[in-house]
Amino acid sequence: MRKFFIYLIFNEIKKFKQMKTYLDCLPCFMSQALRAGRMATNDEKKIKFLLDEVGCMIKDIPMENTPPETGDLIYQKVREVTGVEDPYKKIKESNINEALSLYPKLKQLINNSPNKLLTAIRIAIAGNVIDLGVGKEFNILEDVDKILVQEFAIFDFEEFKYQLEKAKSILYLGDNSGESVFDKILIEELNKPVTYVVRDVPVINDVTVEDAVNSGLDEVAEIISSGSSAPGTILNLCNDAFLERFNNADMIISKGQGNYEGLSNVDRSVFFLLKAKCAVIASNLGVKENDIVLLLNNYRITPHGKSSEIP
Amino acid sequence: MRKFFIYLIFNEIKKFKQMKTYLDCLPCFMSQALRAGRMATNDEKKIKFLLDEVGCMIKDIPMENTPPETGDLIYQKVREVTGVEDPYKKIKESNINEALSLYPKLKQLINNSPNKLLTAIRIAIAGNVIDLGVGKEFNILEDVDKILVQEFAIFDFEEFKYQLEKAKSILYLGDNSGESVFDKILIEELNKPVTYVVRDVPVINDVTVEDAVNSGLDEVAEIISSGSSAPGTILNLCNDAFLERFNNADMIISKGQGNYEGLSNVDRSVFFLLKAKCAVIASNLGVKENDIVLLLNNYRITPHGKSSEIP
Repeated sequence: MRKFFIYLIFNEIKKFKQMKTYLDCLPCFMSQALRAGRMATNDEKKIKFLLDEVGCMIKDIPMENTPPETGDLIYQKVREVTGVEDPYKKIKESNINEALSLYPKLKQLINNSPNKLLTAIRIAIAGNVIDLGVGKEFNILEDVDKILVQEFAIFDFEEFKYQLEKAKSILYLGDNSGESVFDKILIEELNKPVTYVVRDVPVINDVTVEDAVNSGLDEVAEIISSGSSAPGTILNLCNDAFLERFNNADMIISKGQGNYEGLSNVDRSVFFLLKAKCAVIASNLGVKENDIVLLLNNYRITPHGKSSEIP
Repeated sequence: MRKFFIYLIFNEIKKFKQMKTYLDCLPCFMSQALRAGRMATNDEKKIKFLLDEVGCMIKDIPMENTPPETGDLIYQKVREVTGVEDPYKKIKESNINEALSLYPKLKQLINNSPNKLLTAIRIAIAGNVIDLGVGKEFNILEDVDKILVQEFAIFDFEEFKYQLEKAKSILYLGDNSGESVFDKILIEELNKPVTYVVRDVPVINDVTVEDAVNSGLDEVAEIISSGSSAPGTILNLCNDAFLERFNNADMIISKGQGNYEGLSNVDRSVFFLLKAKCAVIASNLGVKENDIVLLLNNYRITPHGKSSEIP
């Protein structure tokens, strides 16, 4: 009881700055359109036309948009110009299959670990490298090895355990296909009823209902759609059913950059698990590129400035 | 005489493919505009307007253009929108001064080397990392150390020595400021009269007459302008005085990517010294990114396919 009192007295709300579209995002949107165009078609003329169109869209992008809102428009354009609804379909399947083949090995890692929950969190963050929006090459096995021992740049693990213990159920915002298998591993360690949220339609390699089922998530969670096609959780693009869950969830775990971009200054507590893969997000979080993060946005500052000293 | 006969019999002309604008160049042009805009001004709105304009230019870029031809248009737009003629002025001065401070150490490296000419070539290629068009970070001292021992992906050194021995004078196409100091070191080892060619006006951090003089090149070479503002040697943008020199030169040494992009399939022999810093150029050369190259374009193939076995 005394602990809880200290918790209430000394804790301030800290919110991160609302993510907006930065100048650096504009060339990145062109690169994303090129990558997605190439996934959809081999027709160079079609891809050139796509880049012409995206180039012309730049002037109309409101800079106060979060990047996934603009991403939504860019990937709509990819679908419109190429006529391909899910350019990443094959590579998503392949990433899910690769992740599933690693599943037994990853479970063994957890079973041999002195801190199963923390190891599962690290594995879930390692899965976040399977992000085909950022255009970085990755080797999932190497990344798992690295992230299993990497120091966290932000580490609100005590708060995570505290909220997890109290929570009756958890809302888990998925990010990429393949990463979804790594999410399953974390969900299995949470030991609580979990609802897993996916995108409404295919966008980049983000996880949809079909991808989630292919990843085996239906065995460990209820799967729902956010109702939005944006590659990140933008509340005003989500449907009412999702919003009700979001507002009333005991605990929310949000995976990846796109969800963080949409929710960075949201008015409720959310745990963000991600690897900072681009300079813009790293800067917003006050960390370095490639840092890993377990962040509670409304997190609690102790008199000593260390959140981990609290219950 | 026999050697010369074999040389004539067994050698075929090999030309590399004309560089054109690739789809990958289009997002890169946006990134270059952003970097140059930021060099020119802190006014985010002006930079956004610059990117709006460059975005709209994408659809009008002829894909058969070489990249420096399009670069010329992009950097003209940077000057027009920001009103700054030479956004890279300060950083060029700083790079030249840093390179000048290394000059004594580099000269010592040459003097201690068993193959002074080859070490000077390596140093001149190391200087090619000072390229602010490609947006890669570099540490010049580290890069010199690396390139002093790096294996060449293409190594037409025997032909280089052969032509150098015969040449009465040499035309040397400069690339970046700072790199120009490294060029001086190679020029000092050539022991022939050298004409050093620079851009007509400031573009990116490319070397101009003023930069060449600040690099001390007036002490070792005649300095002339190509007559063009493109960040590479595009013959149909160059002036007659340069073209006459180019057509009649005994030997031409061309530094860097921009000059290679303009001259890759030119109808005369040119030695290209560069580090392949972008995937598009690496692919055109048939080498890997970050490879170093000493390439004679019209090079001689022996019956064994090895050019270095010839005189």
